[in-house]
Amino acid sequence: MSSLAPVNTVAHPASYQARLDARNGVATGPTANVAPGHVQGNLAILPKDMADEFLRFCLRNPKPCPILAVSEPGDPSLPELGVDIDIRTDIPRYRVWQDGVLVDEPTDVRSVWRDDLVSFLIGCSFSFEEAILDNGLPVRHIEQGCNVPMYRTSVPTQAAGRFHGPLVVSMRPLKPADAIRAIQVTSRFPSVHGAPVHFGDPAAIGIQDINRPDYGDAVEIRPGEVPVFWACGVTPQSVVAAVKPSFCITHAPGHMLVTDLINSRVAAL
Amino acid sequence: MSSLAPVNTVAHPASYQARLDARNGVATGPTANVAPGHVQGNLAILPKDMADEFLRFCLRNPKPCPILAVSEPGDPSLPELGVDIDIRTDIPRYRVWQDGVLVDEPTDVRSVWRDDLVSFLIGCSFSFEEAILDNGLPVRHIEQGCNVPMYRTSVPTQAAGRFHGPLVVSMRPLKPADAIRAIQVTSRFPSVHGAPVHFGDPAAIGIQDINRPDYGDAVEIRPGEVPVFWACGVTPQSVVAAVKPSFCITHAPGHMLVTDLINSRVAAL
Repeated sequence: MSSLAPVNTVAHPASYQARLDARNGVATGPTANVAPGHVQGNLAILPKDMADEFLRFCLRNPKPCPILAVSEPGDPSLPELGVDIDIRTDIPRYRVWQDGVLVDEPTDVRSVWRDDLVSFLIGCSFSFEEAILDNGLPVRHIEQGCNVPMYRTSVPTQAAGRFHGPLVVSMRPLKPADAIRAIQVTSRFPSVHGAPVHFGDPAAIGIQDINRPDYGDAVEIRPGEVPVFWACGVTPQSVVAAVKPSFCITHAPGHMLVTDLINSRVAAL
Repeated sequence: MSSLAPVNTVAHPASYQARLDARNGVATGPTANVAPGHVQGNLAILPKDMADEFLRFCLRNPKPCPILAVSEPGDPSLPELGVDIDIRTDIPRYRVWQDGVLVDEPTDVRSVWRDDLVSFLIGCSFSFEEAILDNGLPVRHIEQGCNVPMYRTSVPTQAAGRFHGPLVVSMRPLKPADAIRAIQVTSRFPSVHGAPVHFGDPAAIGIQDINRPDYGDAVEIRPGEVPVFWACGVTPQSVVAAVKPSFCITHAPGHMLVTDLINSRVAAL
């Protein structure tokens, strides 16, 4: 993961400022469009005994669970992802879970921090959506101002220890020629879900009704468009939720860690 | 085009031998599976006055007409494509056209050679099909032992001078996940047609009946598969045929120039 280390962090202060705003309670809302051009990360914090299993789960399922960084146990810093990160304070809003039950949505988790906690930062589709838009291709849920539609599929993940469950996918409708370009564009971003996993017939991956997503909002599929499906970072969240760990911290939906990594620099090519 | 020059031609004698066999009349059949691993090229030879227009046509339509090399007028050598090439003798079988009419199918065109003739070598799908197969993906027409199905579409090419006409595509059926991988694989080969131009609904590009190709043979599309369409080297052939040039030489179908270029080395990445 050291290969993702920012080369010149002082040249990109917007991401650091976003984290300071979260730390200081100035920013408590979703991070969409915050510090554009910077990689944002999904958060899962687990006690060390479960973290080892979860790390293996992520490594076996790199498309839904692309690991941007894993912390040392008890260490709130993430030097691969940016200067001076304190994962306990730098996200605008958290969710704290006990035995699978949501018990709090604080803006700071220092009071519940423990020396055995391991932080996982997992890539998010904001990065590749920026690349899709930069190529002049449409992203329907952004056009419609809603959340991306997401679906539980019949495709199993590769289990590791207690962690198992179905792949969750996000969907963006595109004309075939645009889908081909989107496949090329997103293939360059394996650390943020990479290429799609499916296109076309929803039933082929166990989606019964494309107009009723399991998470997020339905979007319009226009004549001549096909649904294109990407592995989704909700997969690890749903897998963790199913295990009901004794203790767990995640980000609140849409409230991500803004890193110093530059989207265009995490491209594989 | 000099960037395509072979680095070490003596290490790959199979392609040179294939040309010598054609030159000496030992080989007069199709070149499929001849000198595996080597790029093969479609041939069009035109008088200089039409060649200038055709070159512009190719440059405006790089997906169906990817130029591997263009000769100097009257010069039968193609040093970018291999050692000691004589384009008048090194293809197993030619077609000679006068005013759009096929007048001969010789194995040697020295007797009709002229000082104003310009040779165009255009990439062919053999190269990317090898890459598809190397990735463990199926190529149906190879499985079925027939020609690839090809279709005239309603998609116009960009005209240049007298040259214009519809895009011709070849089709290979694939499951969506395999199609995504095939898009990645063939994207690396822009000099041999590159990524697909369409997948799914044939009618969207003006194909009325997928089971009745305009050239080649129909192939089975199995449940769960979608047709995937690539720009095809028959496009320049059909465009040239429509213009009915006073004089023209092409290869006989399936009888290509075997070059010293290595398929894996013409990959863009």
